[in-house]
Amino acid sequence: MTDPVDDFLTRWHRFVADRDAAILAPLLAPDVSLASPPHQAKFEGPELVLHLLDLIVHTIEDFRYRRQWRDGREIALEFTGRVGECELQGIDLIHLDAQARLGSLDVLMRPKSAIEALERIIAPQMIAYLARRRQASA
Amino acid sequence: MTDPVDDFLTRWHRFVADRDAAILAPLLAPDVSLASPPHQAKFEGPELVLHLLDLIVHTIEDFRYRRQWRDGREIALEFTGRVGECELQGIDLIHLDAQARLGSLDVLMRPKSAIEALERIIAPQMIAYLARRRQASA
Repeated sequence: MTDPVDDFLTRWHRFVADRDAAILAPLLAPDVSLASPPHQAKFEGPELVLHLLDLIVHTIEDFRYRRQWRDGREIALEFTGRVGECELQGIDLIHLDAQARLGSLDVLMRPKSAIEALERIIAPQMIAYLARRRQASA
Repeated sequence: MTDPVDDFLTRWHRFVADRDAAILAPLLAPDVSLASPPHQAKFEGPELVLHLLDLIVHTIEDFRYRRQWRDGREIALEFTGRVGECELQGIDLIHLDAQARLGSLDVLMRPKSAIEALERIIAPQMIAYLARRRQASA
């Protein structure tokens, strides 16, 4: 039997490599949360988290995982990449729930200029998405 | 015999708790580098790194370590804290050299507002320090 954490990581890396949100969708816990580099408030719920992660993996170029740490269901994955001219270093701090689904993901990045470059691209798309979603539910 | 990595971590945590640079000084490799949240360029050399880390631990309030990961001489230490009103989450990505001295430390933080708050306090002090150092060596 495959270890559920190994299985999660295999699928997670496939999601990032293929930039395919369909691979990620079944890995999310119902109460998943995402803490992003620019914002204090967390994004909550599978639909919002899926959309934002999909935008992130489509925006960061030359995405490559580096050091990886595991301690049971707590995982830290270092990555490097680029947004336009800005080289960046980041880390995914992952908590898996008891069913080895993504419970929380905290994304930290440096330097500040790379966070700003990412935000400039993603914020307008998130705002447009949230406006569409609000309209659809009105 | 104590494991050298355990020994490093014990001293590191004592440095942060006591905010005492004298504890940190002997733990630095001669070619130590520090990657800070705001800047792309790394700070290099024990004197500069010691000064900057001392400023950081004196500026972040309610500093508390959370999850900790170890893989040989590669270590990741999550922390939370506060700069004024800004709550922050950060991580120290530590590489120890073969003598278990700090070879590189990459500090990542979120959200962006906390990086900016830290920078507003530390940047003027670093500039004053570098100006003094330049004058002393002229």
